[in-house]
Amino acid sequence: MISPIKAAEALAIFNGQGAMRMLGARVVEIADGVAEFELDFRDELSQQAGYFHAGVVSTLIDTAGGCAGFTRMPEGSDVLTVEFKINLLAPANGEKIVARGEVIKSGRTLTITQGKVFVYKDGKPTLCALMQQTLIAVARKSNPA
Amino acid sequence: MISPIKAAEALAIFNGQGAMRMLGARVVEIADGVAEFELDFRDELSQQAGYFHAGVVSTLIDTAGGCAGFTRMPEGSDVLTVEFKINLLAPANGEKIVARGEVIKSGRTLTITQGKVFVYKDGKPTLCALMQQTLIAVARKSNPA
Amino acid sequence: MISPIKAAEALAIFNGQGAMRMLGARVVEIADGVAEFELDFRDELSQQAGYFHAGVVSTLIDTAGGCAGFTRMPEGSDVLTVEFKINLLAPANGEKIVARGEVIKSGRTLTITQGKVFVYKDGKPTLCALMQQTLIAVARKSNPA
Amino acid sequence: MISPIKAAEALAIFNGQGAMRMLGARVVEIADGVAEFELDFRDELSQQAGYFHAGVVSTLIDTAGGCAGFTRMPEGSDVLTVEFKINLLAPANGEKIVARGEVIKSGRTLTITQGKVFVYKDGKPTLCALMQQTLIAVARKSNPA
Repeated sequence: MISPIKAAEALAIFNGQGAMRMLGARVVEIADGVAEFELDFRDELSQQAGYFHAGVVSTLIDTAGGCAGFTRMPEGSDVLTVEFKINLLAPANGEKIVARGEVIKSGRTLTITQGKVFVYKDGKPTLCALMQQTLIAVARKSNPA
Repeated sequence: MISPIKAAEALAIFNGQGAMRMLGARVVEIADGVAEFELDFRDELSQQAGYFHAGVVSTLIDTAGGCAGFTRMPEGSDVLTVEFKINLLAPANGEKIVARGEVIKSGRTLTITQGKVFVYKDGKPTLCALMQQTLIAVARKSNPA
Repeated sequence: MISPIKAAEALAIFNGQGAMRMLGARVVEIADGVAEFELDFRDELSQQAGYFHAGVVSTLIDTAGGCAGFTRMPEGSDVLTVEFKINLLAPANGEKIVARGEVIKSGRTLTITQGKVFVYKDGKPTLCALMQQTLIAVARKSNPA
Repeated sequence: MISPIKAAEALAIFNGQGAMRMLGARVVEIADGVAEFELDFRDELSQQAGYFHAGVVSTLIDTAGGCAGFTRMPEGSDVLTVEFKINLLAPANGEKIVARGEVIKSGRTLTITQGKVFVYKDGKPTLCALMQQTLIAVARKSNPA
């Protein structure tokens, strides 16, 4: 079970990212070791063929993996992405993508996640990306406010 | 030497991506086996600590690698990202990022690139990301116009 | 269902690899889209702390992923690894490792697999590695015999 | 400049790996932030087509990257591979491979390296693999002797 504080902090990470607002991403779920976000297509999110840009797909799943990992990190941590690797399995051609990150292994310092992105075309999902990610827990800076 | 047609096509890929316009990316260079793009910071590009989002960094270097690879692909090809892996080496904390992709090996079907991203803080560059990418040349769809 | 011919060919790939014999790897399972191999510890497989070497772990799961992917490739194909990425999640400290590769997406040219490696210590399994891999189907060379 | 102690310790890591002895790898160079190893072909190192096995190539470059990274780690550290990603650029078809790892960024906890592997065929080198690796410095266990 995720504590209410951890859940609120994970949500605050999502909400604190200008990039999530720019994309127009929405939270589907944040739970213990899991985060799922979704994003509707619009022209600004496209690559040259009119599909979701691989970078946009990557941004959404990187963030989902990061929030998933954050839920397992020690109190007082902030999360940074050390690295990720993503395979684009199919053109992200559709009206919506849904990115789900899940913790595979969480340690004191490093947390490893996997992620999947589905693209919905006429309501039908297709797996379009697969990600593997390494996160690091760093000491949270005191609130600048 | 890159042919004028290839250069124009590579530029058209960049210009044809809604995501590059949304980010506000600019072309620094497109040459044979190389592409370099830059992007100024603004709040919409941020993660929770106010730095460039790892996904934004990834989007810029994925596109730079893709355009670099495209310059070596056969006539009539379009380029798709098969996969990439990125290490975030330092917080992308600064006023600008510059992403440069370079072809390491180009074959008939697959092209491999490496990329580096530098973040500029008060004009001073720091290497903040390192990427390795696999691209595939696919037959270009006829122009929808 | 895997055809008897495909199963025999996948097994021939495993048996045709000097590296599998050198390591002492054994086949646990080859089925449609799946391959699982195992390997007992001995000193020659170690890194400096006396655990299975990360490279040995990588070799076994690369091969398991490759054989898994091969089972879905067109007739007359041979399989080559384009790239793989592996996270070492825990020291591979134990008497045996078991590597299982599974196909996530198979296309005409490229096949994507995921893999897991478990290390057994006193009979108890621990997930010690996670892999994501891209394979390519190439035309099989005629038998040199 | 690498200290004599660091150089000796890095060499001891190489020498302490049963896997390096099994492969028959030799040290070409260990210097500050760099390590280069080589390995002659023999049948036990092969994949099904008679080339160096991708896993063998991976093992050599993983170790070269690890030793390169180790040279920059704090006193009293041991090195573990967190993850690596490798692209196999060309069949490793030849009489020898040479793997060179170089540090890109070294921090207190994590070190990032890049690696290249060349295969020599009739004395002529071809780049056959490209690697990107994350290492972690862990406290060295006291000598078990």
